[in-house]
Amino acid sequence: MTLSPAETGARRTVRVDLGARGYDIVIGDGLISEAGARIAALFPRARVAIITDETVAELHLPAFKAALEAAGLDHETFPVKPGEASKSFPIFEDLCDRLLASRLERGDVVAALGGGVIGDLAGFVAGVVRRGMPFVQVPTTLLAQVDSSVGGKTGINTRHGKNLVGIFNQPALVLADTAVLDTLSPREFRAGYAEVAKYGLIDDPDFFVWLEENWAGIFEGAPARIEAVAHSCEAKARVVAADEREGGVRALLNLGHTFGHALERGVGYDGALLVHGEGVSIGTVLAHRFSAEMGLCPAEDAERVERHLAIVGLPTHMSDIPGQLPGIPELMRYIAQDKKVSRGALTFILTRGIGRSFIEKGVDPAAVEGFLERSGGGV
Amino acid sequence: MTLSPAETGARRTVRVDLGARGYDIVIGDGLISEAGARIAALFPRARVAIITDETVAELHLPAFKAALEAAGLDHETFPVKPGEASKSFPIFEDLCDRLLASRLERGDVVAALGGGVIGDLAGFVAGVVRRGMPFVQVPTTLLAQVDSSVGGKTGINTRHGKNLVGIFNQPALVLADTAVLDTLSPREFRAGYAEVAKYGLIDDPDFFVWLEENWAGIFEGAPARIEAVAHSCEAKARVVAADEREGGVRALLNLGHTFGHALERGVGYDGALLVHGEGVSIGTVLAHRFSAEMGLCPAEDAERVERHLAIVGLPTHMSDIPGQLPGIPELMRYIAQDKKVSRGALTFILTRGIGRSFIEKGVDPAAVEGFLERSGGGV
Ligand SMILES: NC(=O)c1ccc[n+]([C@@H]2O[C@H](COP(=O)([O-])OP(=O)(O)OC[C@H]3O[C@@H](n4cnc5c(N)ncnc54)[C@H](O)[C@@H]3O)[C@@H](O)[C@H]2O)c1
Ligand SMILES: NC(=O)c1ccc[n+]([C@@H]2O[C@H](COP(=O)([O-])OP(=O)(O)OC[C@H]3O[C@@H](n4cnc5c(N)ncnc54)[C@H](O)[C@@H]3O)[C@@H](O)[C@H]2O)c1
Ligand SMILES: [Zn+2]
Ligand SMILES: [Zn+2]
Repeated sequence: MTLSPAETGARRTVRVDLGARGYDIVIGDGLISEAGARIAALFPRARVAIITDETVAELHLPAFKAALEAAGLDHETFPVKPGEASKSFPIFEDLCDRLLASRLERGDVVAALGGGVIGDLAGFVAGVVRRGMPFVQVPTTLLAQVDSSVGGKTGINTRHGKNLVGIFNQPALVLADTAVLDTLSPREFRAGYAEVAKYGLIDDPDFFVWLEENWAGIFEGAPARIEAVAHSCEAKARVVAADEREGGVRALLNLGHTFGHALERGVGYDGALLVHGEGVSIGTVLAHRFSAEMGLCPAEDAERVERHLAIVGLPTHMSDIPGQLPGIPELMRYIAQDKKVSRGALTFILTRGIGRSFIEKGVDPAAVEGFLERSGGGV
Repeated sequence: MTLSPAETGARRTVRVDLGARGYDIVIGDGLISEAGARIAALFPRARVAIITDETVAELHLPAFKAALEAAGLDHETFPVKPGEASKSFPIFEDLCDRLLASRLERGDVVAALGGGVIGDLAGFVAGVVRRGMPFVQVPTTLLAQVDSSVGGKTGINTRHGKNLVGIFNQPALVLADTAVLDTLSPREFRAGYAEVAKYGLIDDPDFFVWLEENWAGIFEGAPARIEAVAHSCEAKARVVAADEREGGVRALLNLGHTFGHALERGVGYDGALLVHGEGVSIGTVLAHRFSAEMGLCPAEDAERVERHLAIVGLPTHMSDIPGQLPGIPELMRYIAQDKKVSRGALTFILTRGIGRSFIEKGVDPAAVEGFLERSGGGV
């Protein structure tokens, strides 16, 4: 793998190849200042409905608005409270109503300025108001830049679980300004990093090696940060282009997520205890260790994964989660209810080693339960 | 045009040609008794979530359930109150929640058993639960059989207007049992007939002539009824295949609808005063008379359209609407706010004569206003 050196001011463009619904992901430091010109190039004279959260608005909305104004684009801001709770029916309905009240027309544009919560929510709203308005993702967390803003999954949570109501809705453009990550808390940055590492672990061992060597630069905001985001987007774009609606290979993106989701649910989605990327980190380690226990993956590889995630400061064991997790039987119930379960059989992403993951349908629930007990989790 | 004679027991199949998302519309008397077998052929072992309204449930749910059971399909019914008010956010949210609570999986199926209200609502729900479950339309009104169940427009109403929140979501199958129309009120049947006539008026003068000759048979439920539904579905399927997302020719389906929608809104969507198809009937006559006044369409053609709609018992003049309509300036405001308005210019479907309609962008609002005043409506 050759990773071209990126300089500050450099822009990387990754194309998501979905035919007529294809779009560019543009990545670079300071990109928000170009947002107006780049949006106007696609939607001249559009009005821009900015959906954002209050924290992001405080930090980055002025620059975004200034960029729109410089390009002569009219805009209106629709703020919501920060946090997962905004991905809900009442906020969804309220946003639809506010967008309609502001007399946006079908050719106008919705911009999602924020993390994955805002992207998922705004993408769903944009997809249903007047049966679909174009929308632009302006992801402001590392997780959103490398994962949630790409690929078109949008939606909200319900009392039955996360992301259970939504649509596939591809954006028209993704603008990932890596400089806005400077204001992100180290904890949120690390959480996003778990998804970056995931791309190496799925099918790209060279990238994982590169991360082992360059992670410190990525955390410092060096050009390696742009490179890591661009490379992650390329990986996700490739999978999405091959399988837009998750009929097949797209499921590989769920590496570490079946365990991770169960842990997130185990803490009642309390972000103070565990945020998504942290659950993914622990889940990824568990997936490798489970694969090793089944004799599929070398034990050294599982250890190497654990070592790398630990060195950046991510949790890697269930015991790293503060407070009490539910017992193993309860965690097994969550796992069985996970979306990726089909007609009672357990589907897991397992691996034969670093960068060698695969989809395994019909994993024996008893094997998972025994593994979790030996892992000392959940009691 | 040759219209093949249809016999009772005969099934007509119309294909909606949308590539991978294409589907069949099957039409015939007594088709509900075959629903289980036909659904099982596409979705073996699926569980069927039946969304229906209480009126339709009373009349036709037992036969539908029996058919599912005969095919070995498990099912659960989710009834809502009949009427337009069910196309609302609260009912939408409640249905999503109830479907999720019933632990349907992604491979299960939603069936919409009812008129256009049920089809629009259930199609939207099916499109968002777990980011999309397959769904089957089982339309039970003439309007739903010839119009709303075909083409994938789904959604709900908001306080800002009708159908303003929703998605394009194509069904996997449409089963139009023409025998269930026997229980439909004559008024609702006539309302659906306005949409049947519309297909002749858009681009199929031979079909309009055939309707002039065969309308009585259609109302009696003779084989002509199956023929009229099948021919209408063919017409709609053709337009939808050419322009799924209403970027172009699909707008022709709105013939009569800009005026019609304004009138529906003028009575506050009170179905006791005016149902959708009645608004379309008056709107269609107005569109022809307006075109005639502009010198585009022979006056005889406008008169012939009015005569035919009147003979089947449909209203054709604004004065046929009981109660008081708002004044012309208010109706003009509704017209200007109609979805088909783009950047301030008025778009109308006008016509050069029977079966010769076309899209005219940039109609002068003053001309419309003057025409409405001369038509004596709204005061
Ligand atoms: N659609 C997908 O494919 C996909 C994939 C993965 C995750 N997700 C979803 O993404 C969500 C998580 O995303 P997230 O981690 O970005 O959460 P988030 O949007 O809640 O952002 C995390 C926190 O960071 C703050 N923040 C955002 N940008 C900031 C910045 N530049 N500086 C300072 N603070 C900032 C936010 O206000 C918030 O408090 C979850 O809801 C998850 O389900 C979706
Ligand atoms: N999606 C589209 O492309 C599209 C196109 C046109 C209209 N629509 C929508 O369709 C709706 C109107 O549809 P509709 O006219 O079918 O209304 P509807 O669904 O309300 O049905 C009309 C009435 O007939 C009753 N009914 C239904 N089937 C019956 C039967 N077989 N016997 C006795 N009673 C029966 C219903 O209970 C209801 O009271 C509107 O909401 C409109 O916006 C959608
Ligand atoms: Zn994730
Ligand atoms: Zn209509």
